[in-house]
Amino acid sequence: MMEKERLQEYLYENIPLSKAMGVTVDSLSLREVVLRAPLLNNFNHKCTVFGGSLNAVATLACWSLLYLNLQSRKERFEIVITHSEVTYLKSVQEDFHAVSHMCGQTDWDKFAKALDRKKRGRICLEAIVGPKERPALLFKGTFAALSV
Amino acid sequence: MMEKERLQEYLYENIPLSKAMGVTVDSLSLREVVLRAPLLNNFNHKCTVFGGSLNAVATLACWSLLYLNLQSRKERFEIVITHSEVTYLKSVQEDFHAVSHMCGQTDWDKFAKALDRKKRGRICLEAIVGPKERPALLFKGTFAALSV
Repeated sequence: MMEKERLQEYLYENIPLSKAMGVTVDSLSLREVVLRAPLLNNFNHKCTVFGGSLNAVATLACWSLLYLNLQSRKERFEIVITHSEVTYLKSVQEDFHAVSHMCGQTDWDKFAKALDRKKRGRICLEAIVGPKERPALLFKGTFAALSV
Repeated sequence: MMEKERLQEYLYENIPLSKAMGVTVDSLSLREVVLRAPLLNNFNHKCTVFGGSLNAVATLACWSLLYLNLQSRKERFEIVITHSEVTYLKSVQEDFHAVSHMCGQTDWDKFAKALDRKKRGRICLEAIVGPKERPALLFKGTFAALSV
């Protein structure tokens, strides 16, 4: 399992906007990735967090979760987002985190079988973004993995 | 009508991530806002544009269009995004733009009436993002305006 420092380094090197947003990796497992970001790098004209930042950190958290889960496979995969639906519940006036998780074990099994058979598959991942215990954004994304 | 230099300045001052993404205002009218951003500030591990950046520039383009349209009203409004649905069609390997537009005159009339009567309203705005003539992302967002 990759360590959180290594994932953070990977994000900074490969997706520089993650550094501009001040994203840090709080914790990671094969079931959940928690990223954090400060208000300071992401504020808008109302001194709340810009919606584009909330969405981008949610996308990174889901992408990272899939990336970690695909590390254990023999083949390497390219991960792309194909669709997202986002509900903004309230504004965020402080530092925030994005917690990504699987939508259910069934989905993952089906996805893994598709990767075995067709070397490609699609999976739905979710993230909750906001200050602790106060969800401000619900993100649902469909991601595709393609064998490279 | 606000000039494009003034809108760009406003975005940089009020939403610093727009500067980090290298966003510039290409053109603006009450029917369409065109923002541009370079690959350089927004690349990912595949040297294509990070999905979070495509979405964020689409959000800014729609937000700007609504902001410009509300400038002519007597009251001041706070604009917040409440929902978005995004379809990613293809990857982007170069500088890109986001073109926002109204979803139809009917919607705007209904929205303006709601602002008159209730001092608040919701409107759907769309943006197409990608290199010229090659849409890579379709963004549909619901925005709320609240009298302040």
